[in-house]
Amino acid sequence: MIKYPNNKKNNSIKSSDEAKKRTTSNRGMSLEEDINLSNKYYLVNDIAVIYKKPTPVTIVKVDYPNRKSAKIVEAYYNTPSTTDFNGLYKGHYIDFEAKETNSKTSFAFSNIHQHQIEHLNKVDQQGGIAFIILRFNFYNQTFLVKATSIIKHINSGFKSIKYDIIVNEALLIDEGYQPRLNYLKTVDKMFNI
Amino acid sequence: MIKYPNNKKNNSIKSSDEAKKRTTSNRGMSLEEDINLSNKYYLVNDIAVIYKKPTPVTIVKVDYPNRKSAKIVEAYYNTPSTTDFNGLYKGHYIDFEAKETNSKTSFAFSNIHQHQIEHLNKVDQQGGIAFIILRFNFYNQTFLVKATSIIKHINSGFKSIKYDIIVNEALLIDEGYQPRLNYLKTVDKMFNI
Repeated sequence: MIKYPNNKKNNSIKSSDEAKKRTTSNRGMSLEEDINLSNKYYLVNDIAVIYKKPTPVTIVKVDYPNRKSAKIVEAYYNTPSTTDFNGLYKGHYIDFEAKETNSKTSFAFSNIHQHQIEHLNKVDQQGGIAFIILRFNFYNQTFLVKATSIIKHINSGFKSIKYDIIVNEALLIDEGYQPRLNYLKTVDKMFNI
Repeated sequence: MIKYPNNKKNNSIKSSDEAKKRTTSNRGMSLEEDINLSNKYYLVNDIAVIYKKPTPVTIVKVDYPNRKSAKIVEAYYNTPSTTDFNGLYKGHYIDFEAKETNSKTSFAFSNIHQHQIEHLNKVDQQGGIAFIILRFNFYNQTFLVKATSIIKHINSGFKSIKYDIIVNEALLIDEGYQPRLNYLKTVDKMFNI
């Protein structure tokens, strides 16, 4: 059981949307783009098979201007029931969500949907590798946080996790050229695989 | 390397679309619906965490009738780069595609996108469990076929796999009430896990 903060107003911001809002940025790319590029590198080099899942939408109306093409003319975004990324690494099932925050001091759990946390909890309980990639834009630092760390803090009644605690409990992900974000090296360390 | 049949015209039919076309059917549900129901059963009973990925679409235009809602008014279907289903079972990464055919005699490989086959091949090579759930509507039989079986036949130059060969190389999936399609029992047998 996860005692999720009773925060009805879910002001979750997708990493790519938030990235667009950044007015001052040291980098050209959003966290999501960095991860996608890293995943391509891992795929091409036979290191891992990890993809971002498509954005879940409910398609209501489709037009067929001609026999060969279909144009969706009415659709709506769904609340995602799982995380954004999953795949296979060293024979392990890997599953994570990526989030950015502009806060200097903490990351609010209201930025992650409750069922995403529940999903990560299920993955952890069934022997998968579950975590969150969390970027503090202000510090230009990207951390790998175990899902169990986040769940522990939620279950203790906290509505956010302080930056100082992240620095202690999480691991900083190395950034470079190829891969852009070497988060699987951090997975090795964090999960001893 | 997978020597995919040089069949430019990809007449792939999604299982749900094909199901709609069936005029005489012993069952009310498409293969995809059967699998989704089975996955819900597996999830609720802590047997596995397996989901269908959302349909990949490219979103071109979004209207915002008011601050809180977003309506997608122009979007297009993408060719999927991976398979429809993946997840976690007994600590293993599991990945598969579901297909139906109305043919009595064979399943044509042109019904699976080449990059889906390449994806299943990568999953297999990196220690994941990769297969295809294949339903012959005429016989009302659903088989679990190892991805490596399909790849072997493609690499031998075949453009389809005969029903008789499926009966020999694949395993029939038990159908019931809960789960609707007990395909993980078949995974146990096929992959010795």
